[in-house]
Amino acid sequence: MEKDSEQMAETTNQQERDMESDSLHQPLLKRNLTALSSSPLALVGAKVSYIESLDYEINENDLFKHDWRSRSQAQVLQYIFLKWLLAFLVGLLTGLIATLINLAVENIAGYKLLAVVQYIDNKRYMMGFFYMTGVNFLLTLVATVLCVFFAPTAAGPGIPEIKAYLNGVDTPNMYGATTMFVKIVGSIGAVAAGLDLGKEGPLVHIGACIASLLGQGGPDDYRIKWRWIRYFNNDRDRRDIITCGASSGVCAAFRAPVGGVLFALEEVATWWRSALLWRTFFSTAVVVVVLRAFMEYCKDGACGLFGQGGLIMFDVSGVPVRYHVADLIPVTVIGIIGGVLGSLYNYLLHKVLRLYNLINAKGKLAKISLSLAVSLFTSACLYGLPFLASCTPCDPSLVDSECPSTGRMGNFKQFNCPKGHYNDLATLLLTTNDDAVRNIFSTNTPSEYRVFSLVIFFILYCILGLFTFGIAVPSGLFLPIILMGSAYGRLLGMAMGPYASIDQGLYAVLGAASLMAGSMRMTVSLCVIFLELTNNLLLLPITMLVLLISKSVGDCFNPSIYEIILELKGLPFLEAHPEPWMRNITVGELADVKPPVVTLSGIETVGRIVDVLRNTTHNGFAVVDSVGQVSEVHGLVLRAHLLLVLKKKWFLQERRRTEEWEVREKFTWVDVAERWGTIEEVAVTKEEMEMYVDLHPLTNTTPYTVVETMSVAKALVQFRQVGLRHMLVLPKYHGHGVPPVVGILTRQDLRAHNILSAFPHLEKSHASKKGS
Amino acid sequence: MEKDSEQMAETTNQQERDMESDSLHQPLLKRNLTALSSSPLALVGAKVSYIESLDYEINENDLFKHDWRSRSQAQVLQYIFLKWLLAFLVGLLTGLIATLINLAVENIAGYKLLAVVQYIDNKRYMMGFFYMTGVNFLLTLVATVLCVFFAPTAAGPGIPEIKAYLNGVDTPNMYGATTMFVKIVGSIGAVAAGLDLGKEGPLVHIGACIASLLGQGGPDDYRIKWRWIRYFNNDRDRRDIITCGASSGVCAAFRAPVGGVLFALEEVATWWRSALLWRTFFSTAVVVVVLRAFMEYCKDGACGLFGQGGLIMFDVSGVPVRYHVADLIPVTVIGIIGGVLGSLYNYLLHKVLRLYNLINAKGKLAKISLSLAVSLFTSACLYGLPFLASCTPCDPSLVDSECPSTGRMGNFKQFNCPKGHYNDLATLLLTTNDDAVRNIFSTNTPSEYRVFSLVIFFILYCILGLFTFGIAVPSGLFLPIILMGSAYGRLLGMAMGPYASIDQGLYAVLGAASLMAGSMRMTVSLCVIFLELTNNLLLLPITMLVLLISKSVGDCFNPSIYEIILELKGLPFLEAHPEPWMRNITVGELADVKPPVVTLSGIETVGRIVDVLRNTTHNGFAVVDSVGQVSEVHGLVLRAHLLLVLKKKWFLQERRRTEEWEVREKFTWVDVAERWGTIEEVAVTKEEMEMYVDLHPLTNTTPYTVVETMSVAKALVQFRQVGLRHMLVLPKYHGHGVPPVVGILTRQDLRAHNILSAFPHLEKSHASKKGS
Repeated sequence: MEKDSEQMAETTNQQERDMESDSLHQPLLKRNLTALSSSPLALVGAKVSYIESLDYEINENDLFKHDWRSRSQAQVLQYIFLKWLLAFLVGLLTGLIATLINLAVENIAGYKLLAVVQYIDNKRYMMGFFYMTGVNFLLTLVATVLCVFFAPTAAGPGIPEIKAYLNGVDTPNMYGATTMFVKIVGSIGAVAAGLDLGKEGPLVHIGACIASLLGQGGPDDYRIKWRWIRYFNNDRDRRDIITCGASSGVCAAFRAPVGGVLFALEEVATWWRSALLWRTFFSTAVVVVVLRAFMEYCKDGACGLFGQGGLIMFDVSGVPVRYHVADLIPVTVIGIIGGVLGSLYNYLLHKVLRLYNLINAKGKLAKISLSLAVSLFTSACLYGLPFLASCTPCDPSLVDSECPSTGRMGNFKQFNCPKGHYNDLATLLLTTNDDAVRNIFSTNTPSEYRVFSLVIFFILYCILGLFTFGIAVPSGLFLPIILMGSAYGRLLGMAMGPYASIDQGLYAVLGAASLMAGSMRMTVSLCVIFLELTNNLLLLPITMLVLLISKSVGDCFNPSIYEIILELKGLPFLEAHPEPWMRNITVGELADVKPPVVTLSGIETVGRIVDVLRNTTHNGFAVVDSVGQVSEVHGLVLRAHLLLVLKKKWFLQERRRTEEWEVREKFTWVDVAERWGTIEEVAVTKEEMEMYVDLHPLTNTTPYTVVETMSVAKALVQFRQVGLRHMLVLPKYHGHGVPPVVGILTRQDLRAHNILSAFPHLEKSHASKKGS
Repeated sequence: MEKDSEQMAETTNQQERDMESDSLHQPLLKRNLTALSSSPLALVGAKVSYIESLDYEINENDLFKHDWRSRSQAQVLQYIFLKWLLAFLVGLLTGLIATLINLAVENIAGYKLLAVVQYIDNKRYMMGFFYMTGVNFLLTLVATVLCVFFAPTAAGPGIPEIKAYLNGVDTPNMYGATTMFVKIVGSIGAVAAGLDLGKEGPLVHIGACIASLLGQGGPDDYRIKWRWIRYFNNDRDRRDIITCGASSGVCAAFRAPVGGVLFALEEVATWWRSALLWRTFFSTAVVVVVLRAFMEYCKDGACGLFGQGGLIMFDVSGVPVRYHVADLIPVTVIGIIGGVLGSLYNYLLHKVLRLYNLINAKGKLAKISLSLAVSLFTSACLYGLPFLASCTPCDPSLVDSECPSTGRMGNFKQFNCPKGHYNDLATLLLTTNDDAVRNIFSTNTPSEYRVFSLVIFFILYCILGLFTFGIAVPSGLFLPIILMGSAYGRLLGMAMGPYASIDQGLYAVLGAASLMAGSMRMTVSLCVIFLELTNNLLLLPITMLVLLISKSVGDCFNPSIYEIILELKGLPFLEAHPEPWMRNITVGELADVKPPVVTLSGIETVGRIVDVLRNTTHNGFAVVDSVGQVSEVHGLVLRAHLLLVLKKKWFLQERRRTEEWEVREKFTWVDVAERWGTIEEVAVTKEEMEMYVDLHPLTNTTPYTVVETMSVAKALVQFRQVGLRHMLVLPKYHGHGVPPVVGILTRQDLRAHNILSAFPHLEKSHASKKGS
């Protein structure tokens, strides 16, 4: 085998922390040789980040094997106990933080709205306007400043990044303590400011942060160094814990334990197994118990303005649901319109987000200004629009205290109306978003809202829904879509009123469900979440039907909103299914267009290792041993482990194989699980450069391999199913002079987009096929 | 490379249809060489069957590639449309058959019970006994004779076999039209006969049969030969359709659409993806619509004795559920006891099933006698035991028509009591099982049942539950466990009565849930099924808790009941997780203890192919090409395709490579998808034996491979995740004389039990570890 230290570049996609030093080595890297060298950059939090792949493969090196053999039964039991303890803690903390957020939002927004109502009662309309706008402005300012200066990754919902993480893409700074803190405070600020966004998405992200922090034993700089927590310091266990966290977050957001588990299963997770189903279920059960205890405690007014059952958003359990075969028609109509509107929303939001990315790229001030502008616009609309609506006289059958309602809650806001009248638009706009949904879902109130008010509400929330999501505050997508959907559902219900037997409030529920399915394209999990939200099982069959129809319709137009955001953020998500044209190309062809693979000898000089680490950006290197004439692959060694060797200076004077005890003396499996910084942090003296390193004990001797004739489609299935980071491509012919490894494929190499840019003819055949 | 036609045996596990001819070739097969050669036999339906592995890998040979390339966009759309149409039809037919079964059972059992009540009213007790016993005897006779003579695979629930099928093990005669017919009629007979078994498990099997028959275009002998149905003639699509069928079956059994999907996901399926979630959901939605329409139709008594809402088994939606933190204690107690009882049930059932296997092995008469004996015993107990219970005076607050109830239904059976009194044990025993569950779940009836009656009921159903399951009739496990569990739950509720605020009926529900979790070890799906059954969301948190506790407790003792049955039936189920000791052994070592791999040349003589097919039992052969000195693996050819070549006599006069059009002229991809009988059916003349076959176009050129140094643990992960049938083991060293393939591993080779019998020292290290 020829080793050519001049040509030591393959294309991977990770940790290019020092782009400039790379560009100096341009000839070495031969980046122009390959069209597969897509950049490992992603726009996360509207800032370019360097992303890294995760490693779910078990690294079977000598240390691992020894550690595994020496693990006692007691340690195994300890590990299992800790796994469950972590799942419990994730649920507990997520529940507590969700409680905190709910309390804070309800109280801040509540006192704000009470004051505004006071001003309006006194006819001091301008003061009311300035007060409301001012408070909202300040709250938004807090949220956006925190996001922009301390944790850009806290902006947005965070669900796409979690989805990417569980697919094997690590976005940096996503699960830190700062991010979590900013997400919590920012979410309270943004939601209390009355912006058109929810706390649901952020709660999912917070759950994942809690899980990640617990799993690694605390924030990055203050980690608990307990031995036991180190058990979880690997990508596989972190993946499981973060799945638990995401489920707990959804559960906390909607008080939907089964829905939370299914959401994680259907939308977020890439790999799944029964054991995980069972553990996430445990976490969400804990969340529900915490939330229920909290609501029990707050029932008697011990929590300020947090009303009774503030968390049960849209309980319609008391409503008798009756429907017949004839009701299938309106249900179908809702489904179709929901699908069309949902995909239209995806399309428009995509455009707006691209525009916002341009604005956000202009700097921190631009980001903050954008957020504040949206806040001002929102406040002005929420306060001003109700003046357009005319007053409605109260239904005489209602008691005085019910209509007009005077406090913060209530379904019939008096606003600017005379006594005995209410302003239906104020009922919908001058509340928190949660209460707005509750009001619009309210049943047995067929004549409460006028068509005019609902149309205004719908149009307003369409505009806000499009222009609020991209600003630099923590923001969920669920609630904006529910608001839009419920308005159009209720409008549709009013239009069909005489022909259908379903209540208008239920129409609103179905409208919300249809728009969510049309935009997010989930089915089972959404169905269960709605079931648990509305607390009415009789709704299940029609909800299922609506969801099925809107998802099918939406799928005709564009991908789901999360996929669009993933694409926008540039996260290299691996899809479950290979594209059909991937059968026409082999992994050998892919490996050919990449620069030759970098190989290391089993016993390598320190100088060459430093050289390779400095001049390439790869995270895995093939280790090749030469036995006489024949060379054979020993395995794959990770960059992190090479750095570990250099940092710990485990050098040999002569070229020899080490004994097992030597490596065990120097390294523990805890060291091996860490990520060890960059090559720039390593100082090696000139003499040391001449010394040797025995790579054998640190090499993963059993990497997953494919033969070069394997089609990319089948290789992709293996890559994703087994959860790989590097896949070795072996030659088919083992003649003289044929290298034992022809390439190493990574996530980026197998992405459809990257392959097509290297092999444009595939796209052509693909397109001509589509045309035919 | 050396080819040694004397040593052409590896150990696979399929299609040993002719065991005697094998034993003649004993020296050839060298079966004694290997300890891995476990038998491909399984006890299914208490009869030894030859089982076959399924092939979920895409067979990338020339024909496939050409077919794939030539498929137009229209055909792709047609395929997608058909997939959905099949999902729809599966749901529709499962719903209709479930309706039919319910109608038949309710009417047959209903008229039987009415007549018995008539006899008792007239004090003709002996006549009543003979009538009931006689009718039950006849019904059981029909069920068992059908099962024994026409479809032995129809006995039992069928769920373990479906689980094995979706794991990749094909049990013969499992999904035929006869099996389905026997299952339907047998299930009606067995359930109407009052045996302690449910229609739930059989419905799942029926759903799978419907799916399989639709997917292959009809019964084996009368298949529709439409071109389009051939699209689904492959193991991958059949797997998906059967998953749909199993979900629909669960849905039809419990009217639980989401529960059905989750049951398939959690308990039955091995591979899963989001697209399937969505398709099974569609099927179950259709089932629910069918069932609802049917119930709507039957509401006014148009269906004979099928009462209103006969399918809603245990609707407790009207019950206000209230519980506090203090209620956690009884809930925990229920969970723990449920776990212990559940695992005890598993243990005892295992013993009973082993005993029954011995009896059933004695012949058809023994089987039938066993069933009839159980039927007689059941009838005698159901009729006789109520005489032990004393009469209870009716609660005066109840109206006359309610207590004592006179007809078939009702919660207060008069039986042998004077007017104004009822017999509580007769209420529970002299009904269908469904009604018994409904009665025992009934709420707000704290003093209805005496402890004595419930104890008798519990003991009786423990005995029946153990001794009924193994008889040769279609039998589900759900209902027996629910019956036992509800009795012990209600008893517990009565014991805790003064201390807890939960209703006794809810205790019964929780008891049933705990026993199911303790025996079947499902969590999320069971939770959702119970949610949908009881129609009360407020029960969700405590149900979750109970399920979690009982599953945990049960897992401490033994595996789930389905795993026990799989083991008993000898089905080679591949577990998701490798055993820890599998890291200590490589696939190379496994391949070493097997006889040398059988290889064919790319262009092979007909004689050698016939020879190999006759003398081995393998279903896959490595195809190796020699290029000068070096030999290389071309791929893997399936036995079915070799048989196809022999049957179609695609022979060449000279040793040459064929052109692509030649093979396309002779074969279509439809031929390739079929299974082509046995070698005994092939007649080849002496001259033809000298001719050649070009195997290249029929060879799967991209089989999944592992290097011989791969640990079995990691190889198993790949094998299961990618869904393989054959896994090629490549050598690590490619020196002169090293064969290009060192082995082919199959499902049996990777099973823990088989490896341990070949490498006993692994077990020792494993055991010593456990002891430490």
